Amino acid sequence: MSSAASMQPVSCFPIPGIPLVEPGDDLAALMEAALRDCGVGLSDGDVLVLAQKIVSKAEGRYLDLAALEPSQRAREIAARTGKDPHHVEAVLSQSDEVVREGPRVVVVAHRLGFVMANAGIDESNIEHPDGTRRVLLLPENPDASAAALKQRLDAAFGVEIGVVINDSFGRPWRNGVVGVALGAAGVASLVDRVGATDLFGRRMQVTEIAVADEIAAAASLLMGQADEGIPAVLIRGLPRHGPSRPAADLVRPRERDMFR
Amino acid sequence: MSSAASMQPVSCFPIPGIPLVEPGDDLAALMEAALRDCGVGLSDGDVLVLAQKIVSKAEGRYLDLAALEPSQRAREIAARTGKDPHHVEAVLSQSDEVVREGPRVVVVAHRLGFVMANAGIDESNIEHPDGTRRVLLLPENPDASAAALKQRLDAAFGVEIGVVINDSFGRPWRNGVVGVALGAAGVASLVDRVGATDLFGRRMQVTEIAVADEIAAAASLLMGQADEGIPAVLIRGLPRHGPSRPAADLVRPRERDMFR
Repeated sequence: MSSAASMQPVSCFPIPGIPLVEPGDDLAALMEAALRDCGVGLSDGDVLVLAQKIVSKAEGRYLDLAALEPSQRAREIAARTGKDPHHVEAVLSQSDEVVREGPRVVVVAHRLGFVMANAGIDESNIEHPDGTRRVLLLPENPDASAAALKQRLDAAFGVEIGVVINDSFGRPWRNGVVGVALGAAGVASLVDRVGATDLFGRRMQVTEIAVADEIAAAASLLMGQADEGIPAVLIRGLPRHGPSRPAADLVRPRERDMFR
Repeated sequence: MSSAASMQPVSCFPIPGIPLVEPGDDLAALMEAALRDCGVGLSDGDVLVLAQKIVSKAEGRYLDLAALEPSQRAREIAARTGKDPHHVEAVLSQSDEVVREGPRVVVVAHRLGFVMANAGIDESNIEHPDGTRRVLLLPENPDASAAALKQRLDAAFGVEIGVVINDSFGRPWRNGVVGVALGAAGVASLVDRVGATDLFGRRMQVTEIAVADEIAAAASLLMGQADEGIPAVLIRGLPRHGPSRPAADLVRPRERDMFR
């Protein structure tokens, strides 16, 4: 048992007690209450991971598909992919570039830089009152959303935390979706290991680690994707990986991308 | 504090005390000793994540580049990419297909199906005795390696655990590498959510979650990439995601892939 003391576990707490979020809700206040009520609180160095959907809902990022008039281009893509033309119009409205079309999917470069299916727009876990066809868009600026939440929660608890906003992305070459970081504040989203040496003193070939994406993936294990209703996970005890960087740093510039 | 009792955290323990692994070492015995010495042990439902490198080393998956004669094709690729022809020859020997070439990288479809940079071959964290140019290949069959380790550790501790073998992969569109599952046993590597409903009873659009990749990514947060020397992480308290499936199920069939 001698080395157990030096072996700090990292703990991931699913945060219960978060109500269904409505546009205009004060998400920081809801999170503060949930963290206090469940007895976990916040400590220095904690990283709070929030599902994109509750951030978008609080920011009122709904769009009514029925109010959109699909363009000719949207109709053509819809015909080729088997998608709804209104949904395609919404996807195009959020995107800079169509990267691929496939059965019931349009992979786009979102205005925020993320290459993702359907611009991250889906209709699950969204209320559809009065027969409207609401969809939920990504937060306008996820790094700014994360920074605002961090500032409020840091002040409320007198600590310095990290905040990550995650979503689930599909990937080329591999089945299944994984959690990915859309926004981050107070987190070393991307860690540069240039100059680091390996166990044998050899200079590392791989120089960058997408820490915020690994945090997002870890939290997704507890959030689930369906009706589990756990939209926030607190991660406590993570090693410090480096200086704070926004999730935008995880977006690879187009000119350095071999796959579009 | 009333809901704290229902909120089980997931704990990730970095496992110290694993010696440098040599070909022929009994990795299950080394892991058993390390788990007992650090006081963590093993419990039902635990998932033990092992870095690919220690599995490959125990299996003696070294290759001496100096013993390879680069083919004409390897020389051509080396000239175009700025890579060493012997290294390219080693990469091609492990691969079914070259997917992309770029500066100092060849993205291939490994014989095991993984689309990855340089067939996962690198020279970091490997001893280079007597001036040889050893590289380390992936395990011959990572799912089988995971299953064998699971069988031994289940028996040693009288439990049922999961085992994941992870590695770090780069990705299109995003900077930095993330942990990915190469092999798995006793884990729901891919979870099919067909028929699951969301919070509002709507049928889920996204049907599959790459749980083993999220587990691999979570463990990578504690392993580091350089000289931290933590090649194993134990994850305790994960929710049961579904029936056991090998990591091979995470490989997307070529005909369903839009990106090659």
